[in-house]
Amino acid sequence: MKISIIGTGLIGGSIALKLRDKKFTDFVYGIDQDEVHLNNALELNIIDEKADMENGVKNSDLTIIAIPVDSARKILPSVLDLINDNQTVMDVGSTKSGIVESIKDHPNRKRFVAFHPMWGTENSGPKSATKESFAGKAAVICNREDSDADALEIVEKVIANLEMHPIYMNADAHDVHTAYISHISHITSYALANTVLEKEREEDTIFQLASSGFSSTVRLAKSHPEMWVPIFRQNKENVLDVLNEHITQLRKFKSALEKENFEYLEELITNANKIRGILDK
Amino acid sequence: MKISIIGTGLIGGSIALKLRDKKFTDFVYGIDQDEVHLNNALELNIIDEKADMENGVKNSDLTIIAIPVDSARKILPSVLDLINDNQTVMDVGSTKSGIVESIKDHPNRKRFVAFHPMWGTENSGPKSATKESFAGKAAVICNREDSDADALEIVEKVIANLEMHPIYMNADAHDVHTAYISHISHITSYALANTVLEKEREEDTIFQLASSGFSSTVRLAKSHPEMWVPIFRQNKENVLDVLNEHITQLRKFKSALEKENFEYLEELITNANKIRGILDK
Repeated sequence: MKISIIGTGLIGGSIALKLRDKKFTDFVYGIDQDEVHLNNALELNIIDEKADMENGVKNSDLTIIAIPVDSARKILPSVLDLINDNQTVMDVGSTKSGIVESIKDHPNRKRFVAFHPMWGTENSGPKSATKESFAGKAAVICNREDSDADALEIVEKVIANLEMHPIYMNADAHDVHTAYISHISHITSYALANTVLEKEREEDTIFQLASSGFSSTVRLAKSHPEMWVPIFRQNKENVLDVLNEHITQLRKFKSALEKENFEYLEELITNANKIRGILDK
Repeated sequence: MKISIIGTGLIGGSIALKLRDKKFTDFVYGIDQDEVHLNNALELNIIDEKADMENGVKNSDLTIIAIPVDSARKILPSVLDLINDNQTVMDVGSTKSGIVESIKDHPNRKRFVAFHPMWGTENSGPKSATKESFAGKAAVICNREDSDADALEIVEKVIANLEMHPIYMNADAHDVHTAYISHISHITSYALANTVLEKEREEDTIFQLASSGFSSTVRLAKSHPEMWVPIFRQNKENVLDVLNEHITQLRKFKSALEKENFEYLEELITNANKIRGILDK
């Protein structure tokens, strides 16, 4: 199977590496506006050949769009314009309502599968790509009823080759859930980094004292704005809803401390501890 | 050297395991109110013998207090009452101003060294203890001028055997810095867990969708209230100060989203990205 990867960064690159390793594909075209990324991807054996959009997509059985969600939404209609009924297109974006909405009336809508792998790191670019990536994680397919059965089947094979397990979900529900589970974590982490950078002027002290706990909580704050501004933009309403709740929750800690109500503080912490039972099932 | 560990949990247990492994000590007394912990510690070869406070402390060259900060503060004077000029006492608490204040007029003050190892996990109890723990992390000694030179030297040897590097700091400065770097991370993480638990009623969805990013950010929310309520209580003013700043920072994200000011959002994220340069020095 021939594949085109539009966007040869962390996610696109990692998918390509894994699918090549599994011999799911025998030829990968790389399409990327960033010539440096493209050359890196070639050197790192992520892709076999650099291509422009038209050549790559037209000659591929499967095209995987792995660029920031706003750009993905922008180019998807023209990618679908290029393909026929035997070709499939999937994306990997962290927001789903916008992208499925943007092509709902496209004649080739059914050749598209809306996909979101629940894996990523704070790093980006082809040099961060690794085939040791997606295994064991959830792979969300949205609005499967809007895709052709054979297109769906190809994406399910991709999921199997990535060693992920598929979850099927409505695009709107996906965007609500990921606001809770992924997007708010990033805002929290960014705001924590900004708090520390604002309050702690002694950078050496941050560096010296930073324990694994701090590094873990603030890790996502290293994630780049090119990826995350578009996600927050596309999922604005859901993210705001969760962010308001998060501020409310923080105010409870503030109030418990201010009033020296340590029983309430203990209650808040004991409630938070329940996340252990859910995450460690 | 004979050692008493008061509190045979994660930190006390891990220190004992490492110091035994390094042959720094040839006999460890375990002192713990929790009989189950004590028996576990014995079975796990963390300690050689269960002891009561008086027997353990009196017969040890070094006593390490590794219990929640409020209890440590409470028992420290009576521990110091039990020792002579050849014996040393250290604690491992995450707040330091309160404990040094509580014994500032004690006749044996100089036999005490205020210590804080910058390592921990969200787990607790002797079963979580591991000798693969402290290496490479910072070990803070506070107000060293208030300790006898030979007592200080013993604690510095402990630090070397834990493969940590010592940092010297005033107790008040320590409490300010740890509020920024450690304590606020825990509140953020607790509040994030509570947010998700409040908004996401479908526990299975949390479990299925939870990516490594979410797990990483929310990891500290598993930490127990027995340890953390006393820390927040003792470091209330500093924690409130940082918490207020953190809420202010989150409000900036909220405002940027509400006003659809995506340039400002990008600016906030780009600023947060600076944490990469500091953590990855």
